[in-house]
Amino acid sequence: MKNIKIVGHKNPDTDSIVSAIAAQEFFSVVLGKNAKAYRAGGINNETKFILEKVGVEVPELVTSVSEDDSVALVDHNELGQVFDGLNFSNVDYIIDHHKISVVTEKPISFTAEVIGSTSSLIAKMFFREGVKPSEKIAQLLLAGILSDTLNLTSPTTTDEDRVLVGKVNEIAKFNIDEFVAEMFQAKSSLEGISIEDIITVDYKSFEMGAIKVGVGTWETTNPESVNIKKDEIMQALATKKIEDKVEHMFFMVVDILKSSCQLYIIGELEKALAEKVFGGVVEDGIMFLPGVVSRKKQIVPQLTEELSK
Amino acid sequence: MKNIKIVGHKNPDTDSIVSAIAAQEFFSVVLGKNAKAYRAGGINNETKFILEKVGVEVPELVTSVSEDDSVALVDHNELGQVFDGLNFSNVDYIIDHHKISVVTEKPISFTAEVIGSTSSLIAKMFFREGVKPSEKIAQLLLAGILSDTLNLTSPTTTDEDRVLVGKVNEIAKFNIDEFVAEMFQAKSSLEGISIEDIITVDYKSFEMGAIKVGVGTWETTNPESVNIKKDEIMQALATKKIEDKVEHMFFMVVDILKSSCQLYIIGELEKALAEKVFGGVVEDGIMFLPGVVSRKKQIVPQLTEELSK
Repeated sequence: MKNIKIVGHKNPDTDSIVSAIAAQEFFSVVLGKNAKAYRAGGINNETKFILEKVGVEVPELVTSVSEDDSVALVDHNELGQVFDGLNFSNVDYIIDHHKISVVTEKPISFTAEVIGSTSSLIAKMFFREGVKPSEKIAQLLLAGILSDTLNLTSPTTTDEDRVLVGKVNEIAKFNIDEFVAEMFQAKSSLEGISIEDIITVDYKSFEMGAIKVGVGTWETTNPESVNIKKDEIMQALATKKIEDKVEHMFFMVVDILKSSCQLYIIGELEKALAEKVFGGVVEDGIMFLPGVVSRKKQIVPQLTEELSK
Repeated sequence: MKNIKIVGHKNPDTDSIVSAIAAQEFFSVVLGKNAKAYRAGGINNETKFILEKVGVEVPELVTSVSEDDSVALVDHNELGQVFDGLNFSNVDYIIDHHKISVVTEKPISFTAEVIGSTSSLIAKMFFREGVKPSEKIAQLLLAGILSDTLNLTSPTTTDEDRVLVGKVNEIAKFNIDEFVAEMFQAKSSLEGISIEDIITVDYKSFEMGAIKVGVGTWETTNPESVNIKKDEIMQALATKKIEDKVEHMFFMVVDILKSSCQLYIIGELEKALAEKVFGGVVEDGIMFLPGVVSRKKQIVPQLTEELSK
């Protein structure tokens, strides 16, 4: 039987790590497959807190895939977000909740839904098969849902996510309010975080029409802790823009308590595009966007629509 | 609530029609949605026989989609196979078992598996939710599985298909041997079938690397009934090749009883490619390929690999 390497996207967020670990249990318990969770990059302070709290080891870094390996992608599907060294023809499974950009040479198993997190989808897949995830996996799934939906406040949140939080917590048995407060504190921590980390820890590049755009995100309960480093961050973004050969580079500082976004605008090209698409005013290099918290739902589709014209 | 238009690919085969009708029941009974099955073209003699036997009306032809419509694609996902007039941004659901070539601007629901037919997948989705399809829908699903897998003999057939045939037939209660014989006879019938029909009734075009290739299929218990029209068919294929602006045009006459294929070779370009990829000998414009019955598994990936080099 082939070994299945399960892995989330580069610059992994919490959902991308915990959904891989949960998928490992799903593949072995429900599908009877040999599967192992990996990570495609360093883990952030929030994820570190969660894995420590639940008592689960950090997955190994995936470095290569042999001809005999089967790969399951979780929480991403676009070529620009897979780990370096992946041959896409090894991909046999995708489980995701993002927009789709996939070309395969053979049929594969693809499970995508319009739902708040990949963790929600994997929880649903367990329950649909009449199988309960173990306590630790339920705790990780709960963390994944609450992290990716910003405690069910993000516009990506669906009624299903709310129901699943209840069902998963029957097994996980967390005090959700306390847990979310701790998780958000860990998310906002800048301990051991360099400027480079801030801009790359949740960075993704997107093909929008024929144009490549980079959008980084930093979610925090305390935007000021990031804003005081604005000049250094702007400089680092400008460098990354050149290195990554993207045509536009954006960076969102998301206030997860007040549900708003400070969009960092590094140059004239980005300024013109953001003014056209989001209609806000740029002051001191920042466009304030009240109510905007979701890159997936409130930033990327709007930019894509404009750039695909 | 939005109306969901469910539709299979252009030049619909049996699986593409019956899986749309079965998905209608799934969407309304399981998901509680307003949904209606359509067809994207004329139905073939096999499908006609099945709908008459089960006592189900031929779905309406889909002609347009309004801004408010939601679209569910079954049994296909590639842009080249969707009905004319579809705006892909209306697609909210895909249920399929083919290779994937999809780019969306927003997250959608995508259910694909490596399984013998879309009917198998929809049957599986019913049972997974603990819901039994109605008797008529079970009969249609059975027909879809047996048609698309050539009575479970095609190399696309999986163990799951075999299990699902048993489970579905507990509800459908067909004599499978008799039903398959009747179905294959209907499939082979040339009654009311023009030369144009023969080459288009199960025709698909594919993007292989940067090259567009057309591959038509005619499945029959009696290849000779088609071969006696070979010269006219070759002429029609050459015309269609120009009209459709494809770089290569192939046509498979599949003997579904003996599990073999006569590949029609219309020109020197096709001859050179087929010799390189399939290694057979062309005699009188036909390359005989024993054991080959599946366009999806035994023709398209092999051509794609060569043309993507």
